[in-house]
Amino acid sequence: MTNKVVSIAAAGILAATAAPAQAQFAKPEDAIKYRQAAFALIGNHMGRINGQLKSNAPNVQVIQSSAALIETLSKLPFEAFIAGSESGGNPPTRAKPEIFKDAAKVKSLAEKMQAEVAKLAATAKGGDINAIRAQFGEVGKSCKACHDDYRRD
Amino acid sequence: MTNKVVSIAAAGILAATAAPAQAQFAKPEDAIKYRQAAFALIGNHMGRINGQLKSNAPNVQVIQSSAALIETLSKLPFEAFIAGSESGGNPPTRAKPEIFKDAAKVKSLAEKMQAEVAKLAATAKGGDINAIRAQFGEVGKSCKACHDDYRRD
Repeated sequence: MTNKVVSIAAAGILAATAAPAQAQFAKPEDAIKYRQAAFALIGNHMGRINGQLKSNAPNVQVIQSSAALIETLSKLPFEAFIAGSESGGNPPTRAKPEIFKDAAKVKSLAEKMQAEVAKLAATAKGGDINAIRAQFGEVGKSCKACHDDYRRD
Repeated sequence: MTNKVVSIAAAGILAATAAPAQAQFAKPEDAIKYRQAAFALIGNHMGRINGQLKSNAPNVQVIQSSAALIETLSKLPFEAFIAGSESGGNPPTRAKPEIFKDAAKVKSLAEKMQAEVAKLAATAKGGDINAIRAQFGEVGKSCKACHDDYRRD
């Protein structure tokens, strides 16, 4: 009993410091909505950058602001893959069951993507369109690496 | 004819500098998804701040990071109320038809909300929970002012 109380207290301390994912979502549907929202905004702004890179006169400011926003958003979705949110959502989640099982691999892919996105935001500030284009390709690869294994078509 | 060419050219210049809303969305459904995503993330992080303010030991860092994120997100949704996006969406848009007609009033309410949110982010940095609570109330009012007139229940 004492051990149980101690471990509950310890869990409480961890909860207070780490602000665990579950606490951010009243119910699993909220977690699905949250990660879908983050990915939707990321996807839209990836599209904006792509549009600029394909144009004859890329607007560097548009690229910079979208890249900075994607950097911020890239930190959001992964805390929302919580237990209980494997299915459901409106529209339904496209997460494959494996994403809830392969924690270490998913973390590694997420961190790779976040690093590539941070590099894109930094490169965008430099304004060199060829360098931006190359780094945008790296970001795309890092997105695809996760989608291939963990997202339904 | 010359006038028409001139005005098309002028519109082109405006488009290049202002990056008009329509250009960011391939179709109206994309605009609905975009604004819903921004509002979903704002709502979630308003809930996180509210949760901290109701707790016995508010985590100021959680409040600060959510407030900073809301400040960034507050700038996103309004460009997405484009012509053609009055209905549709999955889930369906809750925008009332009036939001597409009252441009000046909506702009004014949006700017008020953005100003209150910026003030919340600044207040959060100060760490005074009572001041944060008061400013959080002002943000809530500025959200509600728009929801009352322009969002379906």
